[in-house]
Amino acid sequence: MQELEDLIRTIPDYPKPGIMFRDITTLLADPKGLKKAIKHMAKPFEKEKIAAVAGIEARGFILGGAIADRLECGFIPIRKKGKLPWKTIGQEYTLEYGVDVIEVHEDAIAEGTRVLIVDDLIATGGTAEAAAKLVQRSGGKIVGATFIVDLPDLGGMKRLADLGVESHALVSFGGH
Amino acid sequence: MQELEDLIRTIPDYPKPGIMFRDITTLLADPKGLKKAIKHMAKPFEKEKIAAVAGIEARGFILGGAIADRLECGFIPIRKKGKLPWKTIGQEYTLEYGVDVIEVHEDAIAEGTRVLIVDDLIATGGTAEAAAKLVQRSGGKIVGATFIVDLPDLGGMKRLADLGVESHALVSFGGH
Repeated sequence: MQELEDLIRTIPDYPKPGIMFRDITTLLADPKGLKKAIKHMAKPFEKEKIAAVAGIEARGFILGGAIADRLECGFIPIRKKGKLPWKTIGQEYTLEYGVDVIEVHEDAIAEGTRVLIVDDLIATGGTAEAAAKLVQRSGGKIVGATFIVDLPDLGGMKRLADLGVESHALVSFGGH
Repeated sequence: MQELEDLIRTIPDYPKPGIMFRDITTLLADPKGLKKAIKHMAKPFEKEKIAAVAGIEARGFILGGAIADRLECGFIPIRKKGKLPWKTIGQEYTLEYGVDVIEVHEDAIAEGTRVLIVDDLIATGGTAEAAAKLVQRSGGKIVGATFIVDLPDLGGMKRLADLGVESHALVSFGGH
């Protein structure tokens, strides 16, 4: 969607030299752009009886809450380690240097819950894969994953496909 | 709203002894509760020509994106220090021990933009006050602030009122 792509700001050499950072805050600030993004992220799942959107901290929260509101389902936060107040289960994922952990409340997802995973962007897919594993370990059934931006050269969607998760994105940037 | 209050989980002695933590994740996970909360947070502002929701990281993002979608306006993230990729302005606020900083992109809010501040809960109001100052310093006009939960004994709404900001909340818990 060219209209959405045009609203995304590219910041060269952020957070480090050689990286072209795709900044979606300029899209979010645009009323028509925000509405269009949320509408089209939700649309493929309107007939899918989604019971809960699992949004990945932090930008996935902005889109995930709105998609849950449109799909008339619940919202489950997937957060960085130590941020959730109740009992959690955690999942490690690998960063460029070292590992990180994301968590979900252990009682957030009942067995068989139909879950849609939401984030703003998929790159290598490390976080999304960890989120998918958390949902699966909780007993949830992942119906799909939806993003504004895909960076296909980094292979994130392939990684989710290997877990049996089908992904959608509205905009893709090559050359990474 | 009793129905919403009943969906909030209270965790005693979290994050430290003597604190009754109000956990809204149980409300967010409930489809009817989530929809009702978003609807009633947005409702007082439907005729107010809001141009942007400013959501406070991280739980304010979940509600703020959905409220922006309902009000057909833009969304501006107010984030913890170092999280935004473009040029920012920052505002310090006082914690129990020490200070913290929140930031907004310096070009996010044009002069005269009508802004609604959104977060999940207002306690002492330190973060909300810092968010309001950021919006005002950016040249925005704050139309109001909206929360699910108010802890009135901690005085946050009074603090916002002192800045000329009117606040709304759907549930209040006394005794703090």
